Amino acid sequence: MTKTVQTAVVGVTGYAGAELARLLLRHPRLQGTPPVFAGRVDERDMARGGVPLSEIHPQLADCNGSGALKLEPFSWELLARRGVGVLFLATPHEQSREWVPEALRRGMRVIDLSGAWRLTDAANRAVYAFEDSDAELAAETQAQAVYGMPELHRSRIAGARFIANPGCYATSIILALRPLVAAGLVDLSRGIVADAKSGVSGAGKAPTARTHFMHAADNFSAYGAFTHRHTGELLEQVGIDASEIIFTPHLLPIPRGILSTIYMHFREPQTKAGIAQVYEKFFTGSPMVRLYDKALPQIQYSVRTCYADIGFQLAADGRRAVVVSCLDNLLKGASGQAVQNLNVMLDWPESEGLE
Amino acid sequence: MTKTVQTAVVGVTGYAGAELARLLLRHPRLQGTPPVFAGRVDERDMARGGVPLSEIHPQLADCNGSGALKLEPFSWELLARRGVGVLFLATPHEQSREWVPEALRRGMRVIDLSGAWRLTDAANRAVYAFEDSDAELAAETQAQAVYGMPELHRSRIAGARFIANPGCYATSIILALRPLVAAGLVDLSRGIVADAKSGVSGAGKAPTARTHFMHAADNFSAYGAFTHRHTGELLEQVGIDASEIIFTPHLLPIPRGILSTIYMHFREPQTKAGIAQVYEKFFTGSPMVRLYDKALPQIQYSVRTCYADIGFQLAADGRRAVVVSCLDNLLKGASGQAVQNLNVMLDWPESEGLE
Amino acid sequence: MTKTVQTAVVGVTGYAGAELARLLLRHPRLQGTPPVFAGRVDERDMARGGVPLSEIHPQLADCNGSGALKLEPFSWELLARRGVGVLFLATPHEQSREWVPEALRRGMRVIDLSGAWRLTDAANRAVYAFEDSDAELAAETQAQAVYGMPELHRSRIAGARFIANPGCYATSIILALRPLVAAGLVDLSRGIVADAKSGVSGAGKAPTARTHFMHAADNFSAYGAFTHRHTGELLEQVGIDASEIIFTPHLLPIPRGILSTIYMHFREPQTKAGIAQVYEKFFTGSPMVRLYDKALPQIQYSVRTCYADIGFQLAADGRRAVVVSCLDNLLKGASGQAVQNLNVMLDWPESEGLE
Amino acid sequence: MTKTVQTAVVGVTGYAGAELARLLLRHPRLQGTPPVFAGRVDERDMARGGVPLSEIHPQLADCNGSGALKLEPFSWELLARRGVGVLFLATPHEQSREWVPEALRRGMRVIDLSGAWRLTDAANRAVYAFEDSDAELAAETQAQAVYGMPELHRSRIAGARFIANPGCYATSIILALRPLVAAGLVDLSRGIVADAKSGVSGAGKAPTARTHFMHAADNFSAYGAFTHRHTGELLEQVGIDASEIIFTPHLLPIPRGILSTIYMHFREPQTKAGIAQVYEKFFTGSPMVRLYDKALPQIQYSVRTCYADIGFQLAADGRRAVVVSCLDNLLKGASGQAVQNLNVMLDWPESEGLE
Repeated sequence: MTKTVQTAVVGVTGYAGAELARLLLRHPRLQGTPPVFAGRVDERDMARGGVPLSEIHPQLADCNGSGALKLEPFSWELLARRGVGVLFLATPHEQSREWVPEALRRGMRVIDLSGAWRLTDAANRAVYAFEDSDAELAAETQAQAVYGMPELHRSRIAGARFIANPGCYATSIILALRPLVAAGLVDLSRGIVADAKSGVSGAGKAPTARTHFMHAADNFSAYGAFTHRHTGELLEQVGIDASEIIFTPHLLPIPRGILSTIYMHFREPQTKAGIAQVYEKFFTGSPMVRLYDKALPQIQYSVRTCYADIGFQLAADGRRAVVVSCLDNLLKGASGQAVQNLNVMLDWPESEGLE
Repeated sequence: MTKTVQTAVVGVTGYAGAELARLLLRHPRLQGTPPVFAGRVDERDMARGGVPLSEIHPQLADCNGSGALKLEPFSWELLARRGVGVLFLATPHEQSREWVPEALRRGMRVIDLSGAWRLTDAANRAVYAFEDSDAELAAETQAQAVYGMPELHRSRIAGARFIANPGCYATSIILALRPLVAAGLVDLSRGIVADAKSGVSGAGKAPTARTHFMHAADNFSAYGAFTHRHTGELLEQVGIDASEIIFTPHLLPIPRGILSTIYMHFREPQTKAGIAQVYEKFFTGSPMVRLYDKALPQIQYSVRTCYADIGFQLAADGRRAVVVSCLDNLLKGASGQAVQNLNVMLDWPESEGLE
Repeated sequence: MTKTVQTAVVGVTGYAGAELARLLLRHPRLQGTPPVFAGRVDERDMARGGVPLSEIHPQLADCNGSGALKLEPFSWELLARRGVGVLFLATPHEQSREWVPEALRRGMRVIDLSGAWRLTDAANRAVYAFEDSDAELAAETQAQAVYGMPELHRSRIAGARFIANPGCYATSIILALRPLVAAGLVDLSRGIVADAKSGVSGAGKAPTARTHFMHAADNFSAYGAFTHRHTGELLEQVGIDASEIIFTPHLLPIPRGILSTIYMHFREPQTKAGIAQVYEKFFTGSPMVRLYDKALPQIQYSVRTCYADIGFQLAADGRRAVVVSCLDNLLKGASGQAVQNLNVMLDWPESEGLE
Repeated sequence: MTKTVQTAVVGVTGYAGAELARLLLRHPRLQGTPPVFAGRVDERDMARGGVPLSEIHPQLADCNGSGALKLEPFSWELLARRGVGVLFLATPHEQSREWVPEALRRGMRVIDLSGAWRLTDAANRAVYAFEDSDAELAAETQAQAVYGMPELHRSRIAGARFIANPGCYATSIILALRPLVAAGLVDLSRGIVADAKSGVSGAGKAPTARTHFMHAADNFSAYGAFTHRHTGELLEQVGIDASEIIFTPHLLPIPRGILSTIYMHFREPQTKAGIAQVYEKFFTGSPMVRLYDKALPQIQYSVRTCYADIGFQLAADGRRAVVVSCLDNLLKGASGQAVQNLNVMLDWPESEGLE
């Protein structure tokens, strides 16, 4: 079992990056080995060797002796000099698409939080409109990518050199649907509905008209019905066709958290106990999923945890169910799952540093 | 055309009551004829002839000379003495169930905002568990009740003596569904999903664990899948069966507003223009419905208006649609619709005092 | 008495501009004479004669027949052609500084909502760092400006051709302080504290790090102690020296509303009735100020009204008071006060269209 | 140095209790020794030996193996049987007033989070209106109480058997004021102003009109100027007279966090460096206070930490300052400080389990 490893994070300035920093800084296996934080640094800050982490994220000041840590100017040489073994990329899709092959070539293991490498099917990937400079290299890299959801791909992640960390909406919906679809219970011909709602941090840190307080507060809106980029992940991982699901994301007036309400018809009438058993069996050995058997999950109990919470209600006729799936979009929906993948990759206990 | 009428409001202390007061106080046809506000008044306030409206709702102070208005101790004699012609009841279901027959007996017209008389089918009504002291009188009263949605029942409302004002969730869903179902477009066998989200005012003014700021803020939760009391209204007014729809209400962390996201399959592929035309035709002559043809409606544009806003997106295959319906639960979902019914009832312009 | 007047608004796209449009569209004296909306229009929209108001502010759609109104490309010729008599500028300071002299030269009356012309004392004005191209013209224009707070300068506003509409923070503090200071009650040597808190709309419509939902929500912060630009207005209008007051603005996690908590010592012990009388006397004939005699004002009762609400508590020793002053920063703090000034200027009832 | 200790918590159902449970469950020195949770348990739950902690606070489910923990029926025998050494009371004032003497008599050390025993001066205590059944015992107990603010009373806490844990507002204000007042810098004759703002959790878990979402959201209000119960703590701990400070609490529309803006005059002009030095010297060796030297503290950076954050701005004349003090009312303002006191009491590192 690996004792420790030198990690690096590119993209610490964003919301997911901040959470990733926090998780890595307090991870029991990484005490004494804080991550290297690398990225773009302007000239003025070059002079002082980078930007103190406590200026970027005041809430991380003094978190496990992080007072001296800095965001340093990125270079591949920096990572090599520090002996980085695992590189986390919390970078835009395009940048990850370009950097991952290079990082792998240099012998690092990579956990990429962007959407760059999650999709196997080129048709699904079209939505990102990547322009790969070296198509062959891209294809090779894609072939190495393992979709980083331990609940579905634990054994492949264990040996992987490159993890494509799932999308936040996708995680909440796949975990709710995959067990029931895989068990053959769902009548796909009648269509699944995934009505998903996310807090504002999911829209990123850049100030935009949509993330302006005056737009988001006291408001609620649907966006991108039939078109959201996470749709491809859903289809590939649940194993269904685009005609068999409608996924509509909505913007909640809260900082963080996703709740997906998922509707389906069953081929045969089911019982509550039967459905519960399917979930329990599927998630045996999965410490980061909590099954609710009484009440339904709520965002307040999932945020600031690394868990995905799943509950359901069955119609009296046993033929239809509403499944509610909750998680923190920055944790189980991004950085928490990234660290979970790190744990599995390095053969550490899967929930280490996540509770 | 009626020049004016003396109105009375029972239940002004609640959220819907406050909005009703505001609308009636500034209604052009009611200038100089402010409503009588009647209700329970404690002994101390009896001495001063009731509770000043400005103490109950400071925001109504000086609103159209309302400074002198009071909540007076309710009695049927009071209403008679003041010559009340139209009585609004914003009272609990049980109280409305009891009082409406008496008010009708005394010759008043009644607009009841509760759920007491909305349902024609006794089976649907079972959820309220009413214990009518006089079953025959109840049946007679029920027979007189007109479901107060002018977009569906304008002509019956015009002559009605008694209006059962619709529920807030029900209004948002019925207006979105009825036109398409009535046109025979919807494949009911594949099931409709109505995923509805409401602000906290919908839960009433009584402080409860659910309405506590610490529970509602930064949170989002589903409740009552398959069981919400508004389900019966949906079924009766849309003309579908309980097995053909799943309606799940959710609690939004905002004061007011409802957004319903409604999913359906069509029997035949449709075009965007075709669907738009069905809606336009249905709502011709309906001033309180706004059809969105570009963006989808958002709660921020519907709250504090008396409109219902409807928009939709069609799947590329033309076989599935997501309809988004928005309104203010206290206005088009309650008091605004009540005043709209008053206007229709008295042959005044339907949108008078509502814009 | 003027029957009506043609108004124009430059700057309708901002938050104050939207409220100004709403107030003018429903103003009883302006029915049938909607404002001209003028501003920058891009080429694509030129082709269709401007941008429909309902696209800029969906909530204004159909508000008093505004469906056909447009934001038209600004030109002095446009305003002349339409016979504009009163021009409202809801523009940046620099633009107002440049445009007001031209508008006056062309014979229009002007109500400027920016901070460009509020300050008489050049030293106070330094904070804006205006670079006037014609210093003499600027001085002349400044000399014509009347500080647009009817409660202090009603008679001068009545005859004015040019109104400098007050700042939102300044309005809330001046109205609370001026009566007591003018009456000679306050011990200025012991210092006044004005601790003011504003909702996010006060920070403008441009998406910035500070107005990002993730920064503003669930947060609260002080900014600009000793340095806020509204300080000069306070000093000039209350008639005190910079050493006699500390004014600290804070950012509230709400869309709109200002609450200022103001602390002072009295020269002699006062009674509650005495202080109340000073306020009542000062505000006799001022319909847009509401004095609270029991509870203190709260933001929830002031927002979406054009009132300033003032209440106070006196220490047991009668020597110190806490005054609480509330208003809607977009209404009494901006557009509501602008329309109030219009009313006074044109000799219409002061509260016309504001209740 | 004590290796571990058996703790118990009465009052885990409240907000402070939940945070206390979380801190104790993950405290490094208490691993393997979870607290006993005791309190009122109804008959139905008696049968199953109490209420699972995960039902009371779903967010604590599985937190460090807490899955099996329960709220057990309180009895002194239970605490004795479990060998409880340190008892935390997160109970109403009256209950703490009654229980503390008994707990001390039974040999337990006590950390009481209520306001029952914080005040030395009987006149200040009058606001609580305690009716002690045994006045002598109460006086004896009071004499043993140490005000649990390690930054002021570290050495007395170290040997104490009974800690009166400070109030949340009081903590934020005392830490900001005490260093400057103790250094003799503040001109008390000109009066201090403490304008304090707290999130809703400070108002407790009971649903009330004030904690209703509809009242608190989008609102902001002052309450209890001159009368708040924390005033006595301020006076005693800062060492000033009631005539020398005005403290006004306000209710912020956020779940948690306190920000206090504190205004003072100095006897002599000060420099920024001089003031900073006074704070630094005072807080040397105090790990739970963070001094800000650039920006001012904001609630977003203090919530969910156990720190108090302090920053200031000095007027240009050096004679006046605005000090901003931020903390999480449930942590440094309650449970975090309680655990800090536990650490000091048991000679553990002061910040153990708090970072």
